[in-house]
Order: sequence, then structure tokens, then C-alpha cells
Amino acid sequence: MTPSEPYDAGIVGAGAWGTTLASHLGQTGKKVLLWAFETEVVEEVNSRHRNSVYLPGFDIPPSVHATADLSDMSAVDRMIISVPSAFCAATLKSLAPHVAQGARILSATKGFVGPDLKRPTELLREILPDHLIGVLSGPNLSREISSGLPAISLVASDDEELVREFQSLLSTERFRVYGGSDVIGTELGGALKNIMAIAAGVAQGLNLGENALAALITRGLAEMIKLGKVLGAGERTFYGVSGLGDLICTCQSSLSRNHRVGRRIAAGEKLDAITSSMSAIAEGIDTTRHVQKYAESRGLDLPITKAVYNVLFKNAAPGEALREMMTRTLKME
Amino acid sequence: MTPSEPYDAGIVGAGAWGTTLASHLGQTGKKVLLWAFETEVVEEVNSRHRNSVYLPGFDIPPSVHATADLSDMSAVDRMIISVPSAFCAATLKSLAPHVAQGARILSATKGFVGPDLKRPTELLREILPDHLIGVLSGPNLSREISSGLPAISLVASDDEELVREFQSLLSTERFRVYGGSDVIGTELGGALKNIMAIAAGVAQGLNLGENALAALITRGLAEMIKLGKVLGAGERTFYGVSGLGDLICTCQSSLSRNHRVGRRIAAGEKLDAITSSMSAIAEGIDTTRHVQKYAESRGLDLPITKAVYNVLFKNAAPGEALREMMTRTLKME
Repeated sequence: MTPSEPYDAGIVGAGAWGTTLASHLGQTGKKVLLWAFETEVVEEVNSRHRNSVYLPGFDIPPSVHATADLSDMSAVDRMIISVPSAFCAATLKSLAPHVAQGARILSATKGFVGPDLKRPTELLREILPDHLIGVLSGPNLSREISSGLPAISLVASDDEELVREFQSLLSTERFRVYGGSDVIGTELGGALKNIMAIAAGVAQGLNLGENALAALITRGLAEMIKLGKVLGAGERTFYGVSGLGDLICTCQSSLSRNHRVGRRIAAGEKLDAITSSMSAIAEGIDTTRHVQKYAESRGLDLPITKAVYNVLFKNAAPGEALREMMTRTLKME
Repeated sequence: MTPSEPYDAGIVGAGAWGTTLASHLGQTGKKVLLWAFETEVVEEVNSRHRNSVYLPGFDIPPSVHATADLSDMSAVDRMIISVPSAFCAATLKSLAPHVAQGARILSATKGFVGPDLKRPTELLREILPDHLIGVLSGPNLSREISSGLPAISLVASDDEELVREFQSLLSTERFRVYGGSDVIGTELGGALKNIMAIAAGVAQGLNLGENALAALITRGLAEMIKLGKVLGAGERTFYGVSGLGDLICTCQSSLSRNHRVGRRIAAGEKLDAITSSMSAIAEGIDTTRHVQKYAESRGLDLPITKAVYNVLFKNAAPGEALREMMTRTLKME
């Protein structure tokens, strides 16, 4: 890459979503630098234009160049962070010295990065206080977007210009990007829906039917809003693309890792066996733990979260936990 | 039936939902009078305790007695009307002279009963002005409830006592009934979601994926609220059981007739062929026509309704209509 051909964007993290975003940009003719933690992923992307570990079955455009060296990111001035929440802090600390002055950064991580439900953009602000920051979130199953199917998403930031810049960078006819200003609500939607997706997977695994699933999603959104308000989110954001949209998508799809965790729990598997058999992280597991701890310490009543927590970590019988939860949540509106 | 054994409730209409409600009440030991339009349905319910026309495969408790004579309804003081919207006016006019003084009446019809989007409870008020009236609506696929799967629903009325009375009549551990006061919003949720269910069926028939379906449901709810506000509904009702809950359920389930209409349209079938092959009415077809006419006459922009209307009635190609609609609806939030 010569200086006359600068990168249009950098993607930090080459999981399914990071790779999908890189390919999506590459397909529109953009030059993309993709950082991967694993050197074998870097080599495969650069030599065979594939990522068979995290996104098997899809070609990656040759305009996507992979690197294992975070210092290469100094060549980009628009960056999307797409690493699992558990690796956010370490990755961002290593990345920080190499971020170009004035670079704008979007978080695409759907989870919490520390105690007290610290969000990825909070961490970004701490580590990179001089940079403009935003969040990307929506109902975006990676394999569907990689297949060219239509989807919508949301970029939110305090900075309107950053929103417009990333909207224009990411939007195509098939992938339409809304703009918003509620960073907290947008980020929480993406994180909290994973708890509900596990619950939905349990419900489907127990064959409780579509009526029960619809009830669960409806009450799940109400529970997300209840917590969201405590954390400073705007209620309306939860009714939009990055809240309800993402919730519906994740609670219905067998392509969701969190949903699969729920179904396997319902089938009687233990959490350890499930996580050790998965190549990628199901964010909802950690999210459930963090949120339950937060709710307990503050006396917040979040019955669905509690039921999922008890099933995942306390060996509660899925059928019984769900029945009790339904009874508790289904009080009068 | 002797006077010492009065009916606990009357159900007017023995379609899938009316029959399910009658069986549900019968299973809790209630005596139920079920009015059916077709004499063969009456005979089968009374002799073989089945309704093979509208709810094949399920036994009906013997405490459910069927009749083809609306005048028999004079023996009940709690009644649920569950006839298709197209037959509401004629049925209620025939029923009116036989309604007992002081009888409380719930509408379970999900559609409009006349021009200008007249709702079933408006018609009830006109025809039976001296009676307390309410509405029952929620994510309630008949076959699931008949199978004993859990579900929730909502009774709404201006009259709190009527709400409590029907909650107590209908609630079981598996079928939980919320109470509300927004009759308009509750009724509109049940009617308008059928338009979205047809759109969802088209999207699924075209294999557009879960991302697109989630986007469609999210924008569909926004479109329902937009029209609902014009018609005097409370916005919050749409985010609850009878709005979002019913919408999600109907847009996902192959058990929904409206959803099936959409899928068959996507497969290239003509509307006439679809309706003539169905044993029961898909309410969404008429609802789409009524709502589109209303929106046109008032200059309201309802892009999903318009797309469904064009596909159903104007021979628009489903793929193209949906693409155009997605482009139009997916503007900034």
C-alpha cells in the first residue's frame, strides 16, 4: 500500500462481524485494513481471501488487507472496533499509542467491558479521550449480510458529523444505516438483547411455542428499558432498529450464538461444555452475569435476567426457571 | 341445561379462536354456550365434541354446548364476540334483541367492521348502547392455546370492573390475562398487525432473511403507531402485549393465516386463488384495503400498507414492491 492509496477504513477484530464489515466495505471498492489477533487468520485473509475460522464460506475482496500488528492502524483515520467485550480493554490499550491524530472511532462490540456495566464507548473515551467516538448497532446477522441480504443498522454519536461520515462510509442500497444521538441506548440495546436471546433459545428449546416467545420478547424489551433508564438511556431508542430490531432478530434466529446457547441449555447440556465447543464467544453469557450482579447490588427486579442467570450459573432446571419467570413477569401492564 | 346450571359465558362465533376460547373455559370447569353459524359445526360440537372445520384435531369439553340459534344467548350475562369482521354487523344486529339486560360483552374480532376504520367495539356501542363493552387481544395462536402451551393476552375496557371480571373468567396459570383501559389501542394493535403479517410473509417467501424481517417488524410497529395516533390510540399500548406481542407472534408464525397469504403471494399465486382455497378468512386482506383507502383519503404516508395493498390488489411484483417499500421506510429515525 503506497501513501497515494490510503485506507478508507480500519477494522479492529476479525471475528464474524469484523470480517463481514471489512468485506462489506471492500465490496463497495473501499480499501480496508483488518486487524486480526490470530496470525493464521491474517495469513488466510491475505493469501486465500477467506476467514475459515470465523466466517467460513465467504470470499473476502482483495481490497481487504489483514495485519496482526496494531501499529499498522496508524494509517487509518476511520476505525471500527469489533472485538469481543472480554478483549476490549487489552486490545484498546495496545491500540491507543498507534491511533492517528483526529481518527474517528466506532464501537461495534455488543457487551460490557467492566464492572458496573461499563460500556465499550466509555472505555474508548477513557483510553482515547481526544477522539470522536460513536457506536454501530442493529439487527445484523453476519452470515446474512455476507450473503448480500438486506439489513439496516444504526450509528449513534454525540457528534453529528461523525454519524454522517460513517453513514456515508457504510451505507449501500442493501445495508442502510440510520443515524442517532443516543449512544447509551444504542449500546445497551445491542448488549442487553443477548440476555433475552438466551431466554428465547431456552423457550424454543422447550417447545413453548410462538405465543410464549412473543410474550417473552415483549416483556424482555420492557426489562431492557427498565434497566436502560437507570443507566441513562433514552426510552425511544429501545423501540428502534438497535433495540427492538436487534432483539427480534437475535431472539428468532438460529444464526445467533446466544440463541444457540439457550437451546443447548434447554436440551440439558452444561454451560462449560457449550462454551468450550463454540469457536466464538456468546456475549450474552458474560452480559447476564454482569447485569445480574448489577441488579442485585441495586435492588433492581429483572426477572428474565435472573432466570437466565440461574439457569446458566446456578444449575436451575430450565423448564422450572422459565415457568417461574413467566409467572413473575406476567403481571398486569 | 336447567336454570340451576346457568352458563358461565357465551361465545359468539365458532371459528378457530371462538372454539379455542370455549374449550379453554370448558377445561376450567365453566359451562359455555357456543354459537356457530353453520349447523354442521353445531351438530359436531354437541355430538362428537369436535370442530373439524375450524379447529381440527382438538377435543372440546362436554361442558361446551353449541347452538345455531342466537336467541339462546339470552341465557348468558358474559359474552365474547369472535366472528370475522366481515360478518360482525349482520351477526350483532341479529344478536341484539336477545342480549340479556346487564350482559357484559367482549370483542375478540381483529379487524375493521366498516368504512373509516370503524372498530368492532364502536359497532357494539352503536348496536348495544346500554351494555358494558371491552376488547380481548394478544399474541394468541389458537392451535397453541388448544395444545396447552402458555400465552398472555389483554382485556381492555373503560370499565375497570368489566376488566377484572373477564380477567378472572379467562385467566389460568397457562393463559394469563393482563388488564388495560386503552380500548382503541388494543383493538388497533390486533387489526393492524395483520397487514404487517402479510408483509412479513412476503419477505419470508422471498427469503430475505432474519435481518430484513426484524427491520420490517420494527418499521411496521412504527407505522401502526403513526396511524394509531391519528385514530386516538395511546402509543404505549402498541409496545405491550396486544401490540408488539401480537405483531411479533403473527409475523413469525406459519400458523398465522395472514402470514401464509404473504408467503403464497411471494410464491406467485394470485389473491383469488389463495382466498378461495382457505377455509377461514385472513383478516389482513380486508384490513389492508380499508387502511389504504383511509390513508389515501387523508394523505397519510403508510409505506408498508401501501406496498402490501399494491401486491394484493394491483398485481405489483412482490420483490419489487418490497424493495421499493424498504427503500422508502428505511429513512433516518
